[in-house]
Amino acid sequence: MPDVTLSRREAKDLTRRRLLGSALRILDTEGEAGLSTGNVCRSAGIAQSTFYVHFRNMQDLLEALGEEAARQAGPVIREARQRSSDAPRSAERLREAFRVPLEKMCAHPEFFRLNVRARFDRATPLGEAARRRAADTRAGLVEDLVAAGIPADTPERALRLEMVADGVTSLTEAMAIGHLDGRYPDIEECVDVLVAFFAGVRAQVLGDQAASGTE
Amino acid sequence: MPDVTLSRREAKDLTRRRLLGSALRILDTEGEAGLSTGNVCRSAGIAQSTFYVHFRNMQDLLEALGEEAARQAGPVIREARQRSSDAPRSAERLREAFRVPLEKMCAHPEFFRLNVRARFDRATPLGEAARRRAADTRAGLVEDLVAAGIPADTPERALRLEMVADGVTSLTEAMAIGHLDGRYPDIEECVDVLVAFFAGVRAQVLGDQAASGTE
Repeated sequence: MPDVTLSRREAKDLTRRRLLGSALRILDTEGEAGLSTGNVCRSAGIAQSTFYVHFRNMQDLLEALGEEAARQAGPVIREARQRSSDAPRSAERLREAFRVPLEKMCAHPEFFRLNVRARFDRATPLGEAARRRAADTRAGLVEDLVAAGIPADTPERALRLEMVADGVTSLTEAMAIGHLDGRYPDIEECVDVLVAFFAGVRAQVLGDQAASGTE
Repeated sequence: MPDVTLSRREAKDLTRRRLLGSALRILDTEGEAGLSTGNVCRSAGIAQSTFYVHFRNMQDLLEALGEEAARQAGPVIREARQRSSDAPRSAERLREAFRVPLEKMCAHPEFFRLNVRARFDRATPLGEAARRRAADTRAGLVEDLVAAGIPADTPERALRLEMVADGVTSLTEAMAIGHLDGRYPDIEECVDVLVAFFAGVRAQVLGDQAASGTE
């Protein structure tokens, strides 16, 4: 092991990251039932009392894990969409723009399910945080859809676009759950369906706007 | 009060229905936090010990409430879709086919959220039951989409159609949640978006099939 001296701050960060990594690993292998502070600390090789230096409780850790996942996956997903906007005629880049978020959701199934579920939970800070992240995700997708040519230049169109973004995310989640449940084994078929929904609604929205006239 | 003598069976049914009604009313007014057996029995005017004659526990009652809601709403939703299939050129009947399930979801917000959340819960019988009901809903929607002219005559097309049905349901849920959260106050705009997604994906799927040739 290389001989590295960590600053107090670095050591604290490292312990925190170990706890987060340990919790995610436990979710992946044992599922939610394994998520006790004792189990997470044992698997991280950290004294149980140290847990509370970093997190108030397991919900607090899960909230941090959600933020961390969004911080890592968010930019990768948005870059894929950007590459698709930059090459509007590339069917493969459009597919990639849907494949990347789908694969991110499927990478940690139990963590994904836990977060989707949390969004419908109105009684806990974890639910609050999950809804806040969902709103951020939606706002990012709205920006990307504007970049892809769907206009948001009136309040009505902006709201419509937000609803479309919401719809696209819910479709992606539905395909991810179907894939994880084994109903849709081929992820490329999930991408097919997402692209069909998106291309379809895009044509409808642009068509409506063309039909609605001369503005 | 009219003097009616109930059979033992009728009395038992009535008590059961009172407990279910009481639980739904509590969800509507106090939310999930109010769902104790004591509270449900008090509000139903029934001795607490009687609860266990009808249900093993609150989860069991919630499972029954889900079945009951599906039994009531399911046929109404499917009739609305049938009326749309019978009049394929009626834009208003198509809207109604999307409006009806949306309104059913929004009628009991906390109950709706609880059921959506349960679907992602893999550790409880309630989650199991919610997923079973979701599968039934999907199968019904698949039948209705076939009746509306989307073919399912090969295994590939049948799976595609199932995925589309899954997508349509997730879109409807996303619009319902947005409406209930106050983000999409006008339910007719939610219907607009659902119709745009559906018309779009329908055109894409039929277009792909036309393009794929002479079968």
